[in-house]
Amino acid sequence: MSTSEVSNNAVIYTKVFETGLPVINEHFKVVERKINISSTKLEKDEILVKNLYISLDLFILTRMKSSDVKNYLGLFPIGSVLESGCISVVVKSNNDQWKEGDLYSGTSGWEEYTIISPEAAKQALPFKQYLKNSLDNGIPLSYSLGILGMPGMTAYVGLDMIGKPKKGETIFISTAAGGVGQVVGQIAKLKGLKVVGSTGNDTKVNYLINELKFDHAINYKKVDIGQALKEICPEGIDIFFDSVNGETLDKVLPNLNEDARVISCGMTSQYNSESVYGIKNLAMIIPKSILIQGFIVFRHYDKYHDSFQKDMLQWLKEGKLKYKENIIDGIENAPQGFLDLYNSKGFGKYAVKVSDL
Amino acid sequence: MSTSEVSNNAVIYTKVFETGLPVINEHFKVVERKINISSTKLEKDEILVKNLYISLDLFILTRMKSSDVKNYLGLFPIGSVLESGCISVVVKSNNDQWKEGDLYSGTSGWEEYTIISPEAAKQALPFKQYLKNSLDNGIPLSYSLGILGMPGMTAYVGLDMIGKPKKGETIFISTAAGGVGQVVGQIAKLKGLKVVGSTGNDTKVNYLINELKFDHAINYKKVDIGQALKEICPEGIDIFFDSVNGETLDKVLPNLNEDARVISCGMTSQYNSESVYGIKNLAMIIPKSILIQGFIVFRHYDKYHDSFQKDMLQWLKEGKLKYKENIIDGIENAPQGFLDLYNSKGFGKYAVKVSDL
Repeated sequence: MSTSEVSNNAVIYTKVFETGLPVINEHFKVVERKINISSTKLEKDEILVKNLYISLDLFILTRMKSSDVKNYLGLFPIGSVLESGCISVVVKSNNDQWKEGDLYSGTSGWEEYTIISPEAAKQALPFKQYLKNSLDNGIPLSYSLGILGMPGMTAYVGLDMIGKPKKGETIFISTAAGGVGQVVGQIAKLKGLKVVGSTGNDTKVNYLINELKFDHAINYKKVDIGQALKEICPEGIDIFFDSVNGETLDKVLPNLNEDARVISCGMTSQYNSESVYGIKNLAMIIPKSILIQGFIVFRHYDKYHDSFQKDMLQWLKEGKLKYKENIIDGIENAPQGFLDLYNSKGFGKYAVKVSDL
Repeated sequence: MSTSEVSNNAVIYTKVFETGLPVINEHFKVVERKINISSTKLEKDEILVKNLYISLDLFILTRMKSSDVKNYLGLFPIGSVLESGCISVVVKSNNDQWKEGDLYSGTSGWEEYTIISPEAAKQALPFKQYLKNSLDNGIPLSYSLGILGMPGMTAYVGLDMIGKPKKGETIFISTAAGGVGQVVGQIAKLKGLKVVGSTGNDTKVNYLINELKFDHAINYKKVDIGQALKEICPEGIDIFFDSVNGETLDKVLPNLNEDARVISCGMTSQYNSESVYGIKNLAMIIPKSILIQGFIVFRHYDKYHDSFQKDMLQWLKEGKLKYKENIIDGIENAPQGFLDLYNSKGFGKYAVKVSDL
């Protein structure tokens, strides 16, 4: 028996934290475990996957923290393995629709091997062929956590469905060097918009301008966003891709044009603040007929999946889209990688490489 | 000459106020004046009207007050006659499209006679026939300041264009006994919605329930709106017709359903507050995919005018719509009437009757 055991190290959630950031070995920690794949019993329709890449996302914080800002999925149970979006490969299946070797993209655990529930296995089915397509086109699998996955689709769907961009309009993107923002900006450029982004350091500012060809980028730590936008966009802003909420939204609102659209897809400013910021300029939406719409991308997979995959693969193949990743190596480095993401140490999409295919 | 002079008393704006409410004879006052109609010279395309009814609206406050909340039309000039929507009759014209006796509905002065600019005269043209239709149908002319005018159209357009009401849904209406709110609620009932309103005293609560047949009405001064809505609408709210903004919006947000629509058409809570209230629950729109849209009704006149007039006249004739007015008699009582409106002394649409047709 013991000969077929393999390592199954995991990151466990150990304690709710109240303020600041989670501390490694206090609020979450790496534990060493083993799994015996051949003796692992699966219930009907369960599958066992080997995790290849784990997505690191800021919103995971809201599932670890007792605060006013609640994640709609709720807190992780104490003692459970942390979860996020993963790219994995099936190593054992008790489900007719999945066989050994199939690629899986969906929620999985921060561990080397995970048993996927029948519900999650069913939900992930549409992505099986999609992952294979990506692989066949020479696209790195990790892209399916980013530009070709949830963040990329968030950019693509939010911009199209709510932003309704028109050539010649001006878009402002907060967290523009992040996994979503860099895709939004590049698609907006392809559609003929003036693209302005904000980010938190000068290296990223340079990346946005020199690599991604944004028209302008600002370091929000050095300038007042409201004042900077007034200078950079005297013509006003038509679309605001808002991943931040809070004070940033308050400063953007006076710079919006009549009939502007605000795509509200995240609230990173609120994930780890001591108190919730109160938006004071919301009434400005009335004289300017502004629309603000929140959205969750997975509700629009069915409608957008095909056009998203077609457009994005084509743009990637033609070299029209660039994408920066920050890949952390090994499950044991996932907790520190997550803290680095929060502290904006690197940029682009953060993911942990757990294992080779 | 002096024999053809007639009274032309007016309400003049005399001083910007900073806090609280304007004071009669300090910030605005009635002045006695005369006008000689026969000797009044009109520039090309100007018309001279006798004002019949003047609309009293809370948003006029934002044009009298130095504060954070700006009206998009700007402050009144000191020494000018106050302005708002009026129903008037043409008594002299230097404009080919207007003749003596025509009914005028548009911006006019708080005075007995007003010279209307060529631009305003042009803008008011589509309403000339409409006013005549109303009169021919036995509808009081004052209704064209209310249920058949800007407030009624605000209700009709906002509900249709942004609210997209579906039978069986639940709507919540703030300032539900006001000139807009009572129309919103009755149209929503006609469309098969569950209708809940809030208002500031028990007489109005009874009116909403017993006369307008709302399903529920609450006195927001006696209960916590957030808690009350939780109890009255355990099924959640699909549409919020928001004339208030501020703390009310913050308390309604947690009670909204997935895909709810917020029609943002006013911010009465902010017109006269010492400081702007900061909205804390805005990030909730993301997990629930909520849409918030501001609008100004006059931008949608062209699209909605015909259907609005047809539907509303029919509903009024069939007795399906009721409407409560608070008519103040005489231009000299306009300032006090405006303060009474602010203090919610009466209810329904406030207007001043200046003169008979």
